[in-house]
Amino acid sequence: MKIAVDAIGGDFAPREIVLGAIDACREFDAEVILVGIEPEIRQILAQHDTAGLKLEVHHASEVIAMDEHPANAVKRKKDSSLVVANQLVKRKEAAAVISAGNTGAAMSASLLYIGRIPGIKRPAIASPMPTRTGVSVLLDAGANADCDPDNLVQFAIMGSIYAEKVLGLPEPKVGLLSIGEEETKGNKLTVETHQLLKEAPVKFIGNIEGRDVHRGSCDVIVCDGFVGNIVLKLSEGLASILFGQIKDAVRTNPLATLGGLLMKPAFAGLKARMDYTEYGGAPLLGLNGISIISHGSSNAKAVKNAIRAAIKAVNEDIVGKIKSEVRSLTDQKDEGENNG
Amino acid sequence: MKIAVDAIGGDFAPREIVLGAIDACREFDAEVILVGIEPEIRQILAQHDTAGLKLEVHHASEVIAMDEHPANAVKRKKDSSLVVANQLVKRKEAAAVISAGNTGAAMSASLLYIGRIPGIKRPAIASPMPTRTGVSVLLDAGANADCDPDNLVQFAIMGSIYAEKVLGLPEPKVGLLSIGEEETKGNKLTVETHQLLKEAPVKFIGNIEGRDVHRGSCDVIVCDGFVGNIVLKLSEGLASILFGQIKDAVRTNPLATLGGLLMKPAFAGLKARMDYTEYGGAPLLGLNGISIISHGSSNAKAVKNAIRAAIKAVNEDIVGKIKSEVRSLTDQKDEGENNG
Repeated sequence: MKIAVDAIGGDFAPREIVLGAIDACREFDAEVILVGIEPEIRQILAQHDTAGLKLEVHHASEVIAMDEHPANAVKRKKDSSLVVANQLVKRKEAAAVISAGNTGAAMSASLLYIGRIPGIKRPAIASPMPTRTGVSVLLDAGANADCDPDNLVQFAIMGSIYAEKVLGLPEPKVGLLSIGEEETKGNKLTVETHQLLKEAPVKFIGNIEGRDVHRGSCDVIVCDGFVGNIVLKLSEGLASILFGQIKDAVRTNPLATLGGLLMKPAFAGLKARMDYTEYGGAPLLGLNGISIISHGSSNAKAVKNAIRAAIKAVNEDIVGKIKSEVRSLTDQKDEGENNG
Repeated sequence: MKIAVDAIGGDFAPREIVLGAIDACREFDAEVILVGIEPEIRQILAQHDTAGLKLEVHHASEVIAMDEHPANAVKRKKDSSLVVANQLVKRKEAAAVISAGNTGAAMSASLLYIGRIPGIKRPAIASPMPTRTGVSVLLDAGANADCDPDNLVQFAIMGSIYAEKVLGLPEPKVGLLSIGEEETKGNKLTVETHQLLKEAPVKFIGNIEGRDVHRGSCDVIVCDGFVGNIVLKLSEGLASILFGQIKDAVRTNPLATLGGLLMKPAFAGLKARMDYTEYGGAPLLGLNGISIISHGSSNAKAVKNAIRAAIKAVNEDIVGKIKSEVRSLTDQKDEGENNG
């Protein structure tokens, strides 16, 4: 199976993207197609020993910038690395696509070329979140700013499949992010969704609150894309501010500086546990294929781990499992309607 | 001016509430009415020298528990400390009310007995948020799970008045919490609100994202009560988990433990900057009087500072200023309609 990687997307592209691909080929024998401006990619490859690695380069002449209008850019730049990488999946020349570039454009391109699974109303970005005890998956992390209860139920089902099969969390517990534990607490969307989730084929544990998000009290956190995006960016922002303030505090006097030095290894462990690069990227679930959106500031390690996640998602047939779950739900509904 | 304090509400009531009231009377000559079961309050007062302090006790025989249904409890328990404290404001026997008890019940009681300012559709909880550079005020922090654009514009106006007059932030900058800086980014609510805020009598700086919340990039953060409540609880939860993990990390080996000891004063400074007790409590803005909701786990310091904030809000005539701002907005609208 070949994984198409947009080599030009991301803050540290193409260098870190190419290095991550090399590492993936070396460490777990991945087959990677690097898509982008060929001379640039070749130049980086030439600095490394890539003999025997299953690495191809597929030329694409255009680049979509981080600040371009997503849908317009995808329509206009047919020979961009992002569009070409997605077309490879469409033509079955690659089993999955990964991009660390413009998130909106990555979504547009995947929707356009890979398409949705029939029955899935809205694909969602499923973002792995480090927690006190391990990792949870939060969805939607920003694909759909306005959602209805049916969307959220589908997110719960897709997130459960991904959490179990790719993140290795058996019988994943699903929590609905709201503003109180009682089922009557929340906004119209969550109060209605709560009732539907009680009947859904997932292990629903009820509402969770903001304070529970990082506690690891559930494996799948369900919310609309507006809330999810704020949760994600707030968490990243606050953690980075707190670590920054600790650094500043350490500098205030020599004793504190010495203390900081002595604590360094302990801090390193803590930071590693909070490290999003461990999980590589966030899949766009609900597509008729695998598309993984990596963090804009992805380094080689993040890219390598995104490739690992993509391979796992293909091997575990995530798409097929979502399809059959959606099908059986639709069948049940039809039966219910016929009987009712 | 007398401040009515619900002495029975809160995790550490009545002791910490009474101690906070004593401190407020001592430190800034406050006049406080402690409302609740008189013998319990007197017992604590008797252990301290309260001679010369302007402290009264007003008996109320009932208690509303933290987990009671807000509206029902307020209707049923007419002689609860919370209801009686709000009635004192209604009868002009107190200038403001403070409670650290059941938040929903505090809102219900204040709405019922103090009432809304004419023209204000929905009062909002304005929660002070410690940031990297100081403090911002976030509203709505949970009073209204579903909002419309007009609600959010009123929140921006009320929050600006509070930030300037009580928190001492001159010409407060207003940010709309959304999922992208561009005005077209967001959900239906924020995209529509963005346009209205451009015309509103506030210093609107545009959308902010989750990562900006704790950066101090604006003084007033506007969002609906669902998002606001999640932001608040997520921030508290994540900060506490990170501090906990640092503690755990420090314990891993003797060198790190020594390091932690050396860093203790620096950490204390950091924790103080993150300390919500500095700001005392969150006012319910839009009421025809001052009602401050304190954190459930308020200690004496939080209560003292809530009393300080209440006095400032009364002295600065926050209610009058909100009234005249709403009136001039309504006049403008009428004029526009008559001319149009």
